[in-house]
Order: sequence, then structure tokens, then C-alpha cells
Amino acid sequence: MNRKLRMGMVGGGPDAFIGAVHRLAALMDGQIELVCGAFSSRPEKSREAGNMLFLDPRRVYPSYREMIEKESQMSAEERMDFVSIVTPNHLHFEPAKLALEHGFHVVLDKPMTLTLEEARQLKDKVDQSGLILCLTHTYTGYPMVKEARHMVQSRQLGRIRKIYVEYPQGWLSMPLEKEGNKQASWRTDPAKSGIAGCMGDIGTHAANLAEYVSGLKITKICADINTVIPGRALDDDGAVLLKFEEDASGVLMATQVAAGEENCIKIRVYGEKGGIEWKQDEANTLLVKWLDKPTQILRTGGPGTSAIAAHNTRTPAGHPEGYLEAFANLYRNFSLCVRARINKEQPKPEWLDFPNADDGVRGMLFIEKVIESGKSDRKWIAM
Amino acid sequence: MNRKLRMGMVGGGPDAFIGAVHRLAALMDGQIELVCGAFSSRPEKSREAGNMLFLDPRRVYPSYREMIEKESQMSAEERMDFVSIVTPNHLHFEPAKLALEHGFHVVLDKPMTLTLEEARQLKDKVDQSGLILCLTHTYTGYPMVKEARHMVQSRQLGRIRKIYVEYPQGWLSMPLEKEGNKQASWRTDPAKSGIAGCMGDIGTHAANLAEYVSGLKITKICADINTVIPGRALDDDGAVLLKFEEDASGVLMATQVAAGEENCIKIRVYGEKGGIEWKQDEANTLLVKWLDKPTQILRTGGPGTSAIAAHNTRTPAGHPEGYLEAFANLYRNFSLCVRARINKEQPKPEWLDFPNADDGVRGMLFIEKVIESGKSDRKWIAM
Amino acid sequence: MNRKLRMGMVGGGPDAFIGAVHRLAALMDGQIELVCGAFSSRPEKSREAGNMLFLDPRRVYPSYREMIEKESQMSAEERMDFVSIVTPNHLHFEPAKLALEHGFHVVLDKPMTLTLEEARQLKDKVDQSGLILCLTHTYTGYPMVKEARHMVQSRQLGRIRKIYVEYPQGWLSMPLEKEGNKQASWRTDPAKSGIAGCMGDIGTHAANLAEYVSGLKITKICADINTVIPGRALDDDGAVLLKFEEDASGVLMATQVAAGEENCIKIRVYGEKGGIEWKQDEANTLLVKWLDKPTQILRTGGPGTSAIAAHNTRTPAGHPEGYLEAFANLYRNFSLCVRARINKEQPKPEWLDFPNADDGVRGMLFIEKVIESGKSDRKWIAM
Amino acid sequence: MNRKLRMGMVGGGPDAFIGAVHRLAALMDGQIELVCGAFSSRPEKSREAGNMLFLDPRRVYPSYREMIEKESQMSAEERMDFVSIVTPNHLHFEPAKLALEHGFHVVLDKPMTLTLEEARQLKDKVDQSGLILCLTHTYTGYPMVKEARHMVQSRQLGRIRKIYVEYPQGWLSMPLEKEGNKQASWRTDPAKSGIAGCMGDIGTHAANLAEYVSGLKITKICADINTVIPGRALDDDGAVLLKFEEDASGVLMATQVAAGEENCIKIRVYGEKGGIEWKQDEANTLLVKWLDKPTQILRTGGPGTSAIAAHNTRTPAGHPEGYLEAFANLYRNFSLCVRARINKEQPKPEWLDFPNADDGVRGMLFIEKVIESGKSDRKWIAM
Repeated sequence: MNRKLRMGMVGGGPDAFIGAVHRLAALMDGQIELVCGAFSSRPEKSREAGNMLFLDPRRVYPSYREMIEKESQMSAEERMDFVSIVTPNHLHFEPAKLALEHGFHVVLDKPMTLTLEEARQLKDKVDQSGLILCLTHTYTGYPMVKEARHMVQSRQLGRIRKIYVEYPQGWLSMPLEKEGNKQASWRTDPAKSGIAGCMGDIGTHAANLAEYVSGLKITKICADINTVIPGRALDDDGAVLLKFEEDASGVLMATQVAAGEENCIKIRVYGEKGGIEWKQDEANTLLVKWLDKPTQILRTGGPGTSAIAAHNTRTPAGHPEGYLEAFANLYRNFSLCVRARINKEQPKPEWLDFPNADDGVRGMLFIEKVIESGKSDRKWIAM
Repeated sequence: MNRKLRMGMVGGGPDAFIGAVHRLAALMDGQIELVCGAFSSRPEKSREAGNMLFLDPRRVYPSYREMIEKESQMSAEERMDFVSIVTPNHLHFEPAKLALEHGFHVVLDKPMTLTLEEARQLKDKVDQSGLILCLTHTYTGYPMVKEARHMVQSRQLGRIRKIYVEYPQGWLSMPLEKEGNKQASWRTDPAKSGIAGCMGDIGTHAANLAEYVSGLKITKICADINTVIPGRALDDDGAVLLKFEEDASGVLMATQVAAGEENCIKIRVYGEKGGIEWKQDEANTLLVKWLDKPTQILRTGGPGTSAIAAHNTRTPAGHPEGYLEAFANLYRNFSLCVRARINKEQPKPEWLDFPNADDGVRGMLFIEKVIESGKSDRKWIAM
Repeated sequence: MNRKLRMGMVGGGPDAFIGAVHRLAALMDGQIELVCGAFSSRPEKSREAGNMLFLDPRRVYPSYREMIEKESQMSAEERMDFVSIVTPNHLHFEPAKLALEHGFHVVLDKPMTLTLEEARQLKDKVDQSGLILCLTHTYTGYPMVKEARHMVQSRQLGRIRKIYVEYPQGWLSMPLEKEGNKQASWRTDPAKSGIAGCMGDIGTHAANLAEYVSGLKITKICADINTVIPGRALDDDGAVLLKFEEDASGVLMATQVAAGEENCIKIRVYGEKGGIEWKQDEANTLLVKWLDKPTQILRTGGPGTSAIAAHNTRTPAGHPEGYLEAFANLYRNFSLCVRARINKEQPKPEWLDFPNADDGVRGMLFIEKVIESGKSDRKWIAM
Repeated sequence: MNRKLRMGMVGGGPDAFIGAVHRLAALMDGQIELVCGAFSSRPEKSREAGNMLFLDPRRVYPSYREMIEKESQMSAEERMDFVSIVTPNHLHFEPAKLALEHGFHVVLDKPMTLTLEEARQLKDKVDQSGLILCLTHTYTGYPMVKEARHMVQSRQLGRIRKIYVEYPQGWLSMPLEKEGNKQASWRTDPAKSGIAGCMGDIGTHAANLAEYVSGLKITKICADINTVIPGRALDDDGAVLLKFEEDASGVLMATQVAAGEENCIKIRVYGEKGGIEWKQDEANTLLVKWLDKPTQILRTGGPGTSAIAAHNTRTPAGHPEGYLEAFANLYRNFSLCVRARINKEQPKPEWLDFPNADDGVRGMLFIEKVIESGKSDRKWIAM
């Protein structure tokens, strides 16, 4: 196959933040082109977006249903290869299911669905169809996050004992949902976000990052879940004590009311011999702390880094790669796998390294259990 | 009174870490002189220490009992004014009690005693005697910690919502107590440390710092308390969900098995309008994050800092003050109060700003409750 | 015009670093598509590149001459709009001149040409043709660099007194040019790089950044130019005392033999009231230091930043934007101007904010003078 | 000798900054006591200081002459062992000379004297008398500065190629000398400071640090010396191109008009294999950058540090030591040498590691040459 992969998009209209991010991430490596979209439930908004994106007006659809159906009727030389779904949570399940049923691979924003039950159904669809689904837990796309995971996997830190993960934000410190902020409105609306607010949006990112880097599953949780802003319908803050496989323990902190904080998700993992520390604000640095020798600074593109980090790096050390490149790594690995599928080739192991339907179900399980724990008087809830 | 205050010391023999720190802190400001000591339970060790410290051999005592008794019989022109007790926890209560009973002010290392009951008795002694007791929760001595407290107190951050405090250490990542390490031996020995290891040693520092900076008392806790190193008799790791007065919540993390970590105690406090962040590794910096304007960097000695910070600062901005100066601030404020007492003067409010017997009782209560919570299936334990 | 701009590329074959960067930067925003290229002087390499980039084989050319001529003969609906020239320095002038003569806009890697004379000729071509030339001094594309310039321009720092700029690299610490390193080979070859090595490659970046941020021209220089690695034909290290307009002074340091350094170009500018500090390693942070109030941390996308920074920002604060996004800002502003030209519209002022032919001539003048100064016994050389 | 060393002080009255710093540094380790002083040229100020410092009024002198003479007449059991001279520059030579002539060791603030000629005379006095002189170039007292020097000396970085040193301050950004600021007044007064302002006060610190860490002497300089504030009688800003022994080169930047800067003196030294970076703001960290492996973070008291650093460290890693401890290291090493002299013992090599009269002469030579270079049209001036 000697052509770019063809992407369709569901959601991502003029005012959406994450839709634009998906496009930037998909396009930058020159492996993917956007060919069609149903960018908004309001047809004129969808047309407006399609126009700004230089799409053929015939492939700008008023609904995702129409898009998926019409595209599926096109020839293999023309139709989209996969669909990116960048809508609010309540509009993940249906278009993803439909896309899979029509033979399209899927990139899906997180959390996977509105409910755990939907997530399980969707995972079944993926399994049955043999199609590829990428869930955009962006932070696992950073080269130095992959390096951290590699260090754990290759036992350089010894047995893992302790995992701290945190995601402090401040953007919901005020009731923006009452002031017409679109993001805030759906994020705090149970009908659109599901049973969790903060924990669904960023708590799942943190839990995913913890399991990804440590290679250990969370087994038990004890959560303190809060709604700090009066009148808000969902949680906007929480902290969770964690038990992991292999006797590791940890803490997850996620909040949207830490006034003044941006998006500095951070993880620390400690084993018998040393620990790693990574945070988004210094995304190209991985601190490696040792029990008995000086701390090392591993750097994106720098000496001493692994092949898996190099595979996810574009520039020589010292030219910072950021959030969009991390996001693009998800798209690139996904696209390499889709391309291999189309070419009936075996994907390389490093291409498979992106969040998938299993991670999505896991995230929805986390949401369900963390909210249950928050309401419970029992200390530990099994996951 | 135109002379240095006279200090006696209990503990702090040749191999002790914290005894030397107390002496450095006490001496540097030229307000205090060391005049006597019972540095070790082994008389020859005590003599050795006394000799190294250039003391009059007649005032180097074989036991704290003898020291307190003999010094109390000396004339007011000669005898010590106060005693510094720098022994392991199980040797805090008796000498402190005896000193107070003989009319000596006391500086006492933390945690206050071996048990909550002892702490309460000691506080009663302090209250009855009218003498002054300083408990060396060192971290509250940093100018920028005081600045943080000042910002909260003066309502610059609005109502406080969230408090994160952490104290990660790595020094007990291996069973050093089996390898003859003296510090490790008593720290992990219930007979000498009490019911808590990590939580008693550094968990209390973190809890004290959280209450000091936020001005809010912890009301409920939910603790995960772990002994990571097999065979160790006390906890070496833990994390605690916290509820504070005024509906604030938080997290306390303390561990001694985070391999590669030093002593970077860190606190973050968020209110409606902004948050503060301080950590020991950059002790002269206070980050002040705002919901709607750029983050500010307050600096020891720098513009925009308060009178309380200035009172605890020795050098112009950019000449870093460290752990010993923070420790010295405790001694200096304590000594100003003792001097005022001797001179029958009223101490200034900023002189009273050092941890006292109330903080000590509070710390022992924290230890008791956090260990109780660690063993409980109930989620929340009232404090 | 409702289509992507069409880019052709000269250079940027399989092994080239900067060619791939240009493509990433050009593509990510979805405003530009790559339609043709002459990627290598070896036709099979060019074909290989074209194939990997999914180009129509008919538009993969064996030489830039052929590309420019053939493309110019195509219809306006098909031919490229502009050409990106990403070859070594000695291959900048001819293709750029040819492109301009055939009516194509140009993106050109820096330094502009091999000699000052060529640069002046090229600038004349630009002026005569009325076409648009963008010179890729990448670092001026960072939002926080633009913010720094804005702060100076809006007089927030008062009159400028002092400018420090530095670009330390370590990659040429060993004679890589003798070990088959392609980059090192041409960078150290006067026939391909011109009269300067380090000063041409990164010294010009530093000088450009200093003039861009301060808004002041360098008027006099005094240079210490060194070739540290024996046998190397060009300078690999240097430092320059600078005099600027309006009585400001400064220092420029650029080296390629600072073993262990990556690419942390850094600038500090001080005025009467305060100073700014920016460095590539923390590219989304602008430190603003004040004489009489606390230092502020301005952040990409954060509160207190200007419209010009916002125009060059893609994501909310805390999602780091990096080198590729800075590079993409050059392409985006360039493309907005080209698009305006095609649409016969007036470009907005913020679109014009990219390095141009004037900057290119200025950079070549810097190279000529800095090498002259390095060889001179006179202290100051006018620029 | 089993007693504290006895210190007398010249200067350091109530308003003086550096006098208080000397006392803190001298006292903290419990090796030195202050026994007498001539704290001010105004006798009542001297008495006031003596009183605050709890001195015997009979040993608070109206002049340094009287102090040195009277103390020299006292018995060996009583008289001071050494004198600390903490006056402005023009009052260094006479009291130091007199002290040496009367058999007292000397601690002397920098720069050594008002003129190079005085410095040479003083050095001769030291050599002839066999007494010990310590010049307080504080920054060489930091453990991590000593570690840096150790790494260079032990050839871990290979041959040294490049040395960058800088000392940016902002405190003289306004004409404070016209507003009654005492420090500013004498620092900008040629009669009290000598021929250099900025270069004498902090340029000498930077030059001393560069030579200390690199182990290489500066051989040639080319200076740009500026007086930024109109009407100021001495330089307040400068930058110097440096040539060192063994073909190394470098840059020295020192300024007092970088508005917003505190005192972050910083040094970087690069050799064939790697480089080190140290700055006062993170004084307990030494970055060690390697050409071909990850950067390491060496820490005061941490793993991988040398015996010389350990000798100058008081606390376990992570308890920050600061400016006063660095200063105290000078006093401690000096006092160990004086004590050895009194005891007729051989000092250990690590005790001799403090700045001495040679460094003082070197500093005065730097001042003379850097001012000469600043006025010269010649590029390079030999040192």
C-alpha cells in the first residue's frame, strides 16, 4: 500500500479543543490524511468545519451514521480506512460500534464509553471484528514515559514497591459550567460524562499511566471523592489509595480545583534499587534515582535511552517534543498497525504499543469502582 | 540580661546525627552557649563528647538525672537556662519531665514522647510550670514555609480546599537495621521509637507542616500503613487520606523506602484563588500559583515577602539559607522567648512562632490514630 | 482559495534531519500539502524519498532545476505554490534564486546563503519579485520568545541595558566528520558551510534571537573564535562581546564542543525595570524578573500572555508545545501570508512575524564580521 | 589545645551585612568564639555592637590599632588567636598588616586590598611571618564546588576546553548610592572600593571560582567594562573573554544592573569527555554532563561524591546546606590549620583548601588588568 491512510472524523467541530489536537497529531507525520467528517450534530457547523479543513463537501456529513454508511459503500480505493471519534463521552459508544460493524478501524477518545457495560460490549466488537481500536490515553505516548516503562520491564529498578501518580488541574476551580463554558458544561454533566467527572476525565489518565509504567494492575482501591464546587453534579476532586499486584502500593491524586495548576500529570515509581520520576511539564526528562549512585537524567533522544523510546522520537536531544508529538505517537503506532493489517503483514512489537480496548474497559472499571469506593464506608474495594 | 543563654544537652554523643544539628543551630546566631551535657548513657562517651566540645569537665555528666539535679543547685549566674533533649524517642519523656520539674526550659526533639499519654502528661507539666518547651519540627522554621502560612492566614488564597503533603525518603530501602546502622536500629525498634516507624519519624513532620501552613486541623484520616521490608517491626511506608476543618481535604504521603529519594518534604495548599507550593530541595523558593494570573516566585529575602519571613531570614536574597538556618530559627525564637521570660518582658508575637507542647500532643495523637487506621477496616477514623 | 497550499521540497532526502523537520512543521496544521520534491542530487535517493512520502512519481524530480521549471509550466490549479529549500548552505542560493525567478515563494533554511554577497542578491530578488521568503530561524517561533519580544516592545522592562544569548552544543566534541557523520562532514566543510562553522550554524541563531527579542541591532562586536578540535577546517566554538543600539551591551556564546550539552539556546534581556529569561529546555516558560516585585512565570497558553503569543499557541496551558510547533509557527505565518497574497488580501500584522530576507542578510553580515573579528587584533569591529 | 579559637573582629558593626555573616560562619561549628572587636570607627557604635554580642566591654575597642596592640600584650591564655577583617576594601590593608606584624592570623574579606601593590606587600608579610591568612571567596566553600574541582583534578572530564562563569546581580540597577544606601555608597566610591566596582566586588569572585574549579590560570583577557548608571564613578557591569592555560578559553560575565537578579553565581566547565554545571541557587546540586552517557546529578552528602566534598558537608543528603555553611567551611578549614599550627601539627591536605594570600594577589591582578583592558583598544591583555 503506497498511500496515506484515510481518516474520517466524528466530532471536532469549530469550537472543540480535542478534535483539533487529533488532527494535528494525525497529520504531522505525513502518514494519514483527513478525507471526511461528521464534525457536529448541527449540519451547518459540520459544513463549516469541513470547509476550513479543505474537505470535499460531498464527504462532509451531517451525521456519523450517514458518514459511516456512505463511506462503507465507497470503493476500497476511496473510502476512509478508519474513523477518529472525538465527541463527548456519551457519543463514543454508538459511532464506535457502528464503525466497527462497518469494518472501520477506530481511534477513540477516552474514557472509552459512558458505562462499563458499553465498554465491554465495544471490546467484544473489537475482538470479534479483528479490527484495531486505539484509545487516546495521550500520556503513554511520551518517549520518556515509554522509557520509564522499559526500565521497569527490564527489571532495572528491581521489584516495584511504590507508585505515586497525580494529575492536578485548576481549570474547574470556579463554576464555569454556569458561565457558558462548553467544555465545563459537558464535563460536569452526568448525561454526557457518565458517573464521574474529575475521575472520568483525568483520574482515568492517571490510573492508566500508573498501570502502563509499572506493568502492574491495580487490585484494590480506597477513594476519597469530592465535589468541591457547590451545586456541581459530578466529582471535581479525589484521591485514591491503591494496592497493586505483587504487593506494591500507591496513591492517585486527581483534582480539577487546584487553582493555578495547569496539566502537570506526574508519575513516580520506586523499586528495590531505585525509582523513576516523570512529569508533563518537563516531558523530555526522565529522572532515574538510584539507591546507591547518583541520579541520572535520561532525555528524549539522549544517550542511554532504549529502542522503544527512539522509535517514538522525532528530533535529536534538546529539541523538545511535546504533547502533540506524544499524541502523534499514538496515531503513528496505530497507523503502522492498520497499514500492516492492510498489507497483511505482521506488525512489529513496538507498533502495538498504544492504548487499546482492554485499556478502555480497565478505565471504565476504574471509574465504576472509584465512585463506588467514594460512597462506601468500607476501606478497600476490589478492582 | 546581657549574656548568652546557657544550654545543656541530653544525648548528642559522638555518633549522633541530630545532636550535632542541634548544636549548630543553637550556636550560629551567637545567642546561646553550650555549658553542660549528658551526651551518652556511657560515661566515657559523654566525656569524649564534652572534650570535643571544649566543655568544663565538671559539667559533663554521666546521666541526665545528675546533670539536671546538679545544675539546678548552681547559682543563677552559672547554671544552664534550658536543656536540649536529642535522644531517641523513648528517652524524651523522663528527662523533659525532670527538667521542667527543676525549672529548666526545654528544647525537645520530635516526636514528643513514646506514647500519647506521656505527651499529655508532659504538656500538663509545661502548662503547670509556665516554662517554655520547643519541639523541633524543623521544617516550620523555613522562611518560605512561614511565608506560605502567612499567605493562607491573610486570606490571599481564599478559603482552603486542598492540602497535599509528602515526605519521601529512601534510606530504609534495605534492612540497614540488620547491618549495624545505629539510626536504623532505633528507628525500627518499637521499644525506642514507639508504635510507629515511618509515621512517627517523618509522618508527624508532614502532618505538622500541613496543619502549620494551612492553619487547619486534621479531623479525620484513612491510612494505608505498610511494612515493605520483610521482618521490620514497624511501618516504613504509608499514605493517608485527610479531612481537615472547614471542609478541606488532602493527602499525606510518607515513605522511607522510596529508593533514591533524599529528604524532599513538600507541601501544596490550594484555596479558591490560588495555591502555594514549597519543597525542601528548593527551600528558598515559594511558588504562588494563581487562578487567573501568572505564577509568582517568592524568595527568601526577596521582594513581596512578609515581615514574618524577614524575621526568620539572615541573608539578602540569593544567598541560600538551608536546613541548619531553619533549625536555628526554632532555637532563635525559643531563645528570644526565654530571654524575655528572664527579663520579665512580653515576647513579640513573631518570637512565639515555634512548635510547642500542643504540637507535640497533636503529633502523638496523629501517630496513635494513623496506626489505628492502618489496622482498621473502617474507612475514616476521627482525630 | 479553498485548498491547502502546495509545497515542493529541495533536499530532505532519506538521511537528512532538517528535511523531515520541515515536513512535520509544514504538515501539522493542515494548511499545506507536499506535492513534489527534488530530495537528493542522486535521483534514486530522490525517488526513494518521494515514494516514502507517497508522492506522485511524476512530481519527484532528479534536480531542483527540473522541478522548478516543470512545476512552473503546470497550471495554477496544480503547480506548487512555494518551495522549501532544506539543503546544505552551498545549495541555498541557486535554487532559491531560481524559484523566485519562476514566481515561487520560498522557505529557506538558515543561514541564508554561502556568502554575504549571495544573500544581498537574493534579498534583491525577493524585493524585486514581491514574493515571500521565510528563513527558518526556528527559535523565534516559540510563543514565549514572542512574548519576550512583546514585553520589550511594549516597554514593560524599560530601556534595555543588557542582552545575554548563548547556544551551547556538544555534538562536535569529537571529530565526527572523520567518522562518516554526514551532518558533521558538511557542517565542517568550508565549501558547503561557508567561512563559518559554529558561528554560521548556531551563532547566527543566537544573534538573530538577540535582535528579535530585544528589538535592537548589534552595532559592534569583539569575537573570540576558536577551532577546538585539531584539524577541523572551521570554527567550532566562539564567544562575542556585543554592542547594541541604544547603548545596550551583551554577550553571545556559541559552541559545539561543550561535551554533554544538547541544544539549550537561552536568552536573557534586562531593562531598567526587570528582565526576561527564556531557554529551549523549558520552552513554554518565560521567566520575568522584576527589580522590585516577585519574579513571574509566564506560560504558553497561560494567564497574562499577549495576543501575539496566543496566535502562535495550539493547546491550553500545560500541554507542552515544542520545537516542531515553533517550527510550524514559521510555516503557518508564512502560509497565511502566501494565502493572503493569492487571495489578494492584506495580511494581518501577526502573520508577518517570521524571519525574512532582511534577517538573512543580517545573519550573513554577522558571519562575515564575526569571523573577521576573530582574526583581528582590533577590539571592536562595526557591524 | 583544648579550647575554642579566639577571634577578634575589625568592622562588622550594627548595620554591616558581611560582618554578621562572618560571625555566623565562625560560630556555627563550635570551634571559634568571638572575644573582642573594633566594630566601627565610631566608638559608640563599636560599644553598641560589643554589647549586642555579649562581649566583655574591656575588649571592645575604639580602633583596630588599639585592639591589635592591647590584645598582643595579653597572655597566651587570653588574647585572641586571629582577627577577622570585614571592613570596606580601603580598610583591609592596614589592619591586616598590623595584625600580621603582631603575630595574629587573619581572615580577610575580599578583594584583598585597595591596590595590587598593597596585596603584594600583604602577601610578603604573610610569607615572612609564616602566619595564616584566609581570604573569604565564599563560593569555593560549597561542597559541590569542591566536588567540581575534584572532578577536574581527577581528570574525569578530560582536558578542559571551555569555562563559562557568570555573576549577575540586579541590586545596583538604580543609583542607590544617591539614596543613602550604605553598601551602595562605598561600593561605588573609588576611595573605598578601589579602581573597580562590579569587577572588584563580584568579578573577582567569578574569576576566583573559574580558576579554582578548572585548576587553570587565566592568561589573557579582553574586557568590555561599562558604567550603566549615569554618574556612577565605577563600573557596574562587564563581560570578559578569557584565555586560560592549556589552550582553554572562556567567558566571564558580571553585572550589578541585571534588574531582578539576586546572586546566582554560576560556573560551567567543559572537557573532552563531559562538563560540570553549578549555580548558587541550587547549591547542593552538581550537574555532570557526559558526551556519551546520561547526565548525573551529584548532591551534597549523596552517593558518588568525593572525600573532599564530604569533609565540607554537615548534614545527610537532602537537608540543604547554604551560603552560611559554605562560608563556615572557610572558617572551619582555616581554624583547623590555625589549631594545627598552635599544636605544632601538620595540617591535613583538605584543611588547606581555603583561599589565601596568593588568591588575593591574583584577584587584585585581575582587577588591575580587567580595568586596563576595558579602557584599551587592544583586544588581548596578558595577565
